[in-house]
Amino acid sequence: MEQHTYSHSLLQELVQNIFLQMGCSPDDATQAANVLVSADLRGIDSHGVARLNGYVRLMDLKRLNPSPSIKIVHETPSTAVVDGDAGLGLVVAPKAMEIAIQKATQAGTGWVAIRNSNHFGIAGYHSMLALPHNMIGFAMTNAGPLVAPTFSKDKLLGTNPIAVAIPALEEPPFVLDMATTTAAYGKLEILQRKSLPTPTGWVQNGNGEPVTDAHAVKNGGALLPLGGDREHGSHKGYGLGAWVDIFSGVLSGANYGPWVPPFATAGFMSSAEQLVGAGTGHFVGAMRIDAFRPAEEFKQHMDNWIRAFRKATPVDGQDRVLIPGDPERILEAERRQNGIPILPIVVDSLRELAKRFNVTWNLD
Amino acid sequence: MEQHTYSHSLLQELVQNIFLQMGCSPDDATQAANVLVSADLRGIDSHGVARLNGYVRLMDLKRLNPSPSIKIVHETPSTAVVDGDAGLGLVVAPKAMEIAIQKATQAGTGWVAIRNSNHFGIAGYHSMLALPHNMIGFAMTNAGPLVAPTFSKDKLLGTNPIAVAIPALEEPPFVLDMATTTAAYGKLEILQRKSLPTPTGWVQNGNGEPVTDAHAVKNGGALLPLGGDREHGSHKGYGLGAWVDIFSGVLSGANYGPWVPPFATAGFMSSAEQLVGAGTGHFVGAMRIDAFRPAEEFKQHMDNWIRAFRKATPVDGQDRVLIPGDPERILEAERRQNGIPILPIVVDSLRELAKRFNVTWNLD
Repeated sequence: MEQHTYSHSLLQELVQNIFLQMGCSPDDATQAANVLVSADLRGIDSHGVARLNGYVRLMDLKRLNPSPSIKIVHETPSTAVVDGDAGLGLVVAPKAMEIAIQKATQAGTGWVAIRNSNHFGIAGYHSMLALPHNMIGFAMTNAGPLVAPTFSKDKLLGTNPIAVAIPALEEPPFVLDMATTTAAYGKLEILQRKSLPTPTGWVQNGNGEPVTDAHAVKNGGALLPLGGDREHGSHKGYGLGAWVDIFSGVLSGANYGPWVPPFATAGFMSSAEQLVGAGTGHFVGAMRIDAFRPAEEFKQHMDNWIRAFRKATPVDGQDRVLIPGDPERILEAERRQNGIPILPIVVDSLRELAKRFNVTWNLD
Repeated sequence: MEQHTYSHSLLQELVQNIFLQMGCSPDDATQAANVLVSADLRGIDSHGVARLNGYVRLMDLKRLNPSPSIKIVHETPSTAVVDGDAGLGLVVAPKAMEIAIQKATQAGTGWVAIRNSNHFGIAGYHSMLALPHNMIGFAMTNAGPLVAPTFSKDKLLGTNPIAVAIPALEEPPFVLDMATTTAAYGKLEILQRKSLPTPTGWVQNGNGEPVTDAHAVKNGGALLPLGGDREHGSHKGYGLGAWVDIFSGVLSGANYGPWVPPFATAGFMSSAEQLVGAGTGHFVGAMRIDAFRPAEEFKQHMDNWIRAFRKATPVDGQDRVLIPGDPERILEAERRQNGIPILPIVVDSLRELAKRFNVTWNLD
């Protein structure tokens, strides 16, 4: 399987044109493509253009509205609830972040719970929208159930990521973007392709026993919360994933827990029969730094913080201590320059979509 | 070592009287004792009355002001920065929560960063102060450096806990209260007393190698972030601990990272020579539920959430799936009725303090 690389601008153009033909407005198509290509640039390939056919399938299933009317349904000076009108999470979440940023400008902080949405791509993208405003950004989302809580055979949670983006002055920003599981599902797919086992603490089988089979989740098993098992703190990973689920689902009026609709590509999951809310839920926020202390002063201390951690003595065999966001930023710089490697199977799926939607194929 | 149990009300009375004699106001003494005894009731014995001599030592070292003037130094509709005037964190944090709750009443949410404070006991206590107001509560704190980031030999972070308390209707509240390390330091102390090794992923030695020696941290080693090592997601635990540190320290103007002053009992840690802020930092928050959706409706869905998780099929060998907060609540009910077991060495330290401060000994 030879893997070719493609320029991010060509990928952006192609994906944007497909979203346009799906019925998205020009602005929404640009925004949605930008979130997907950003995932590929940052090395989170499982959430990049490889997912485009999933969004198309969602539309075919009438679960996705390409031209949603996104509305605030309730608000206070520092909060809002947004109904995404079954739109692309890729578009709904940035709109919700805009509202959060506006609230923060007025009230110091802004917090928006979102219901009736769909998969929103990488959480980090949305949290980083706050950075140019001298704000700290947050993003969380729930997702279809793939994760078993500690002591559970059943899958009740998604990989439910948390992202926190914090600006610095001369140093690059601190960007934490983490699934609340030991490993994200995309990591399993890589091992599946290579026929490799997983490390311990990543998955359990259908009987709730810890295993190292990369195919376990597809065969009735589950991903495990960060920590892996009770002795290694999995109740903490479970608690974090639960927190994300409650903020994204229960606070917004979306579905939660086992009722969250699966993403369209997850064919091995069946939709919950009775729903308890509307679509998938997200939770985003923005905090104005100078609502706490002068932004310049804060950012100088962030530089100091980052430098103190960078200059820690590394353990043997490692070059240095990383800051959250370093690996993604380094990869993004490299891929912006040299292109993004895309698996042949993903290129094929894009070619099919281009054909279906009569979009000029620009990747050869 | 025979262990006696003592009634929480006698412990409360004793500790309160000692705080009074240390120079605390009657209200502050009651509050401080309440936080400590609450830790013992909830089974977090390492943060309970066993710490009282540590607070006394902080006072002897002139690092603790028993009668602080706690002040808001900056605020917006939904935020505030509080200077704790070197007071007990046990007192400063509840005052900051009051401010957060008041802000949330007006603006929907309230977020308070606190500097110039000291150890605040268990994070869960402070987050739960929001519950009677139909609000969600948050509490975080940084702490003296005991934790090595992923790939680091050096200790740069504290055990930096996160607490989130969310009310339900008929079900008890969801209370997540977790150190961002695989295991809290108190768990090591239990193993030290029993001369037992730790599980993997808890500690490393002074050379940055993973070990299972419960004494490793005292001998130049470090606690490990939740996850244990890179393959098991320790970069996520490190990222969470870093987030807590930045919110508690950098946002408030307190110390952060390696500069956070050690708690007085941690004799094996030396204070950082140059400080970058004032004292220890915390970050607390409150979100009014009906700033998002009607409180009754939200709480009904929380009951539904909790019940769905409780009725998950347990793995073999386990009775049931727990909700965050269950173990502590169950233990609290039991200890309120039957008393709190206190180690003889802790009883001795309390007896000495009673003697020093001329407080009537009421525990025989």
